[in-house]
Amino acid sequence: MKLTPQAIEHLLDHWPVARLGTLAEDGRPHQIPVVFVRCGEALWTPIDGKPKAGGLLARTRNVRRDPKVSLLLDHYEDDWKRLWWLRVDGSAEVHNPADPEADPEIAPVLAALRHKYPQYRDVPLLSGRPTLIRVQTLDVQSWCAAPEAFAAA
Amino acid sequence: MKLTPQAIEHLLDHWPVARLGTLAEDGRPHQIPVVFVRCGEALWTPIDGKPKAGGLLARTRNVRRDPKVSLLLDHYEDDWKRLWWLRVDGSAEVHNPADPEADPEIAPVLAALRHKYPQYRDVPLLSGRPTLIRVQTLDVQSWCAAPEAFAAA
Repeated sequence: MKLTPQAIEHLLDHWPVARLGTLAEDGRPHQIPVVFVRCGEALWTPIDGKPKAGGLLARTRNVRRDPKVSLLLDHYEDDWKRLWWLRVDGSAEVHNPADPEADPEIAPVLAALRHKYPQYRDVPLLSGRPTLIRVQTLDVQSWCAAPEAFAAA
Repeated sequence: MKLTPQAIEHLLDHWPVARLGTLAEDGRPHQIPVVFVRCGEALWTPIDGKPKAGGLLARTRNVRRDPKVSLLLDHYEDDWKRLWWLRVDGSAEVHNPADPEADPEIAPVLAALRHKYPQYRDVPLLSGRPTLIRVQTLDVQSWCAAPEAFAAA
């Protein structure tokens, strides 16, 4: 069965982690876990200041080459009646604002990220050339194992 | 930094959930959470008997069309020093054994799944036409935020 519309809205606003699926240059599917925030009509995920693996900016290169992405939110636990997932199919674009804190589109995204993730008090939200990926939602699919799988608080 | 080889081996044997990334017919990246087991040199994920969304067998269609897949294991928690991910890039094939419990390649996979997931005492492991996806590992990438991010038990 599907998640309720209320659950979907709640998860898009509050769930802390998603997996970003993109298309790699060699035609392979690429996946990476990301933090994200909903701001306006889009979902935004920053390339933040945490240490990265060498190839990590693959996500940025992939999106520049092909905007087709998916964002997967899900929950696993041993009680399989509690399983659910939510997948956003979207179109992504890379933003490199020159002055992010003053950018009228970007500043609210940074504020929303800092509100959702108190970790950004210690972790630099932006480093080097500021990079954020904006995902415009094209479709939302969901599944849950049972009505009690997810209940918005 | 990368996960240690010991951590990678442990996670591939014991972590309960992965996200399977495939290529959809329309060229989009597709993601779905899956259970999996390592058996021999491959990772196997079954299409088990839990209720499915209508389009869920997309993963099977996708793999039949294009074997390029990724499996992403990751961990999120509020303490970002504990974050890690592990991605397997692989080549997948769909198996539809006629007599799975007697199939010399498939029977050990079913036994390993039942051992790893006690939930299969209650959830049918196979239903309808038995379907399992075998993923041959081509490459493994990993990242962790700090040496203490993951310690094999």
